[in-house]
Amino acid sequence: MKIKIIEVGARDGLQNEMQALSVKDRYDFIKKLCDSGLKIIEAGAFVSPKWVPQMDNSNKVLTKLFKDQTSGKINSKIQFPMLVPNMKGFQRAMDSQTKEIAIFGACSESFSQKNINCSINQSFGHFKAVINAAKKNNVKVRAYLSVAFGCPYEGKVSEQRVIKLTEKLIQLGAYEVSIGDTIGVATPKQVRSLVNKLGLKIPLKKVAMHFHDTRGTALANVLASLDLGIHTFDSSLGGLGGCPYAKGASGNLATEDLVYMLEGMGHKTGVDISKLIKINKWIENKVGHQLPSHVGKTESSLYK
Amino acid sequence: MKIKIIEVGARDGLQNEMQALSVKDRYDFIKKLCDSGLKIIEAGAFVSPKWVPQMDNSNKVLTKLFKDQTSGKINSKIQFPMLVPNMKGFQRAMDSQTKEIAIFGACSESFSQKNINCSINQSFGHFKAVINAAKKNNVKVRAYLSVAFGCPYEGKVSEQRVIKLTEKLIQLGAYEVSIGDTIGVATPKQVRSLVNKLGLKIPLKKVAMHFHDTRGTALANVLASLDLGIHTFDSSLGGLGGCPYAKGASGNLATEDLVYMLEGMGHKTGVDISKLIKINKWIENKVGHQLPSHVGKTESSLYK
Repeated sequence: MKIKIIEVGARDGLQNEMQALSVKDRYDFIKKLCDSGLKIIEAGAFVSPKWVPQMDNSNKVLTKLFKDQTSGKINSKIQFPMLVPNMKGFQRAMDSQTKEIAIFGACSESFSQKNINCSINQSFGHFKAVINAAKKNNVKVRAYLSVAFGCPYEGKVSEQRVIKLTEKLIQLGAYEVSIGDTIGVATPKQVRSLVNKLGLKIPLKKVAMHFHDTRGTALANVLASLDLGIHTFDSSLGGLGGCPYAKGASGNLATEDLVYMLEGMGHKTGVDISKLIKINKWIENKVGHQLPSHVGKTESSLYK
Repeated sequence: MKIKIIEVGARDGLQNEMQALSVKDRYDFIKKLCDSGLKIIEAGAFVSPKWVPQMDNSNKVLTKLFKDQTSGKINSKIQFPMLVPNMKGFQRAMDSQTKEIAIFGACSESFSQKNINCSINQSFGHFKAVINAAKKNNVKVRAYLSVAFGCPYEGKVSEQRVIKLTEKLIQLGAYEVSIGDTIGVATPKQVRSLVNKLGLKIPLKKVAMHFHDTRGTALANVLASLDLGIHTFDSSLGGLGGCPYAKGASGNLATEDLVYMLEGMGHKTGVDISKLIKINKWIENKVGHQLPSHVGKTESSLYK
């Protein structure tokens, strides 16, 4: 089975690092990710540098990547989605010839307020405006739904709400919705239940899963989703990132751990794991601390 | 579903720590594990202190535990299996009134030679002698089979060999065989294949799985086994231990991670996870470094 991986390390990962990396370092990081075989790589965000200084000058990173695609230095088929919170961000995305954007909402009111400073309803108002503008400009839209398996403020999150919000995003025009376990509390039983119910309402090829390894369950949750027909997963090189608004939520699922399990099971990711391990060492050096990835700590995958 | 957990932190875990803990610290550790609700706790090993100084004076630890069981300070139903490599170790186990022992073999010749200094055939000669003596003394015998999913020296390990060795151990008289992914290379497809084939030859209630989280796949492998009828898992508080003979093989599956996933799926472990998290902090302080457990780094399980 061919599996689609969305690499979020250079955006979701780096934006949660204390220290902001330079435009050159971010470009170098993404270039290495391209060379590893990854095909969809989040390259930055058009958000206020006052709120997210780590993503400042994302337009410069993107411009250089596009230039490299034109010159053939980077595979022209690689997609670089850019995070966009509202129409102002969308305008900046258009100024940089962005071809794909990602919007982000939450499944709980408290998390929505703390993370994007508005109610769920208000956020969908912004999404509608952005998606409509994107359609007019032939820009693809991906959507994130965070805290889908549990909220640090409200606890349990209703499955019905997650399903309803996912449906709404698809109806508005998102080509894919990424369902996020932002604080890493999900277990496979919960994942199976949600995916089964989602599958009754939405074609599962339009659904991606975004797991955090906070409690060690990320790959078990990937397995649970995979068994039920999900073939798209978000992950972050080295497990970079997490969420600063969610206590204890360190650790996106590491791309190298995901690739190790998938390839070990005979699935095709198109990614060279030995290159990921090298990038892990390189980016650890840039961010200045060890990353939570498991495979990144091994010297190699030992054997196939 | 009721799940049986075998806690191996105080033996498999501590014997791989650089620094040996005192008899008092090892006793205190095991006492805390008893108070968390764990029912089967490896308490030490009757091996040469020249080879494994960390397990020296295991008889003293065990004697104090038995005394506490007699006085009612520790639940008298808790089992304390002791590792025994040969007849000499068995004699020492008998001197301490041990009621249950564990023997250990390997699935590859190279690993057997490096780890226990004899061929697989020779090791089975020792097992036969020990198991026969155990039967005469009404002592229960558990068996370990290491490198069942891959060997650091030989690479792939034949499923047929693993199945044959497991059958042989059951025939000799072991009441349970623990199948170990000593270097943490297994992926769920491999686990499913082996468990399915084992199930055709051996009642799966006699099989335990022992996963390492070296590449982040431990809980995914637990899930794969659980789905196919395995209800017995080895784990180690905090993820203590690994195997000094296998490069990069840090990280037994942490008991708190295992309990989090199982309880989150509605299975019954009888273990209080908040107590495990407290023990994690305590033992980290004793061994002097951070442990690889995921849940141990969270403040609590956030919510049920």
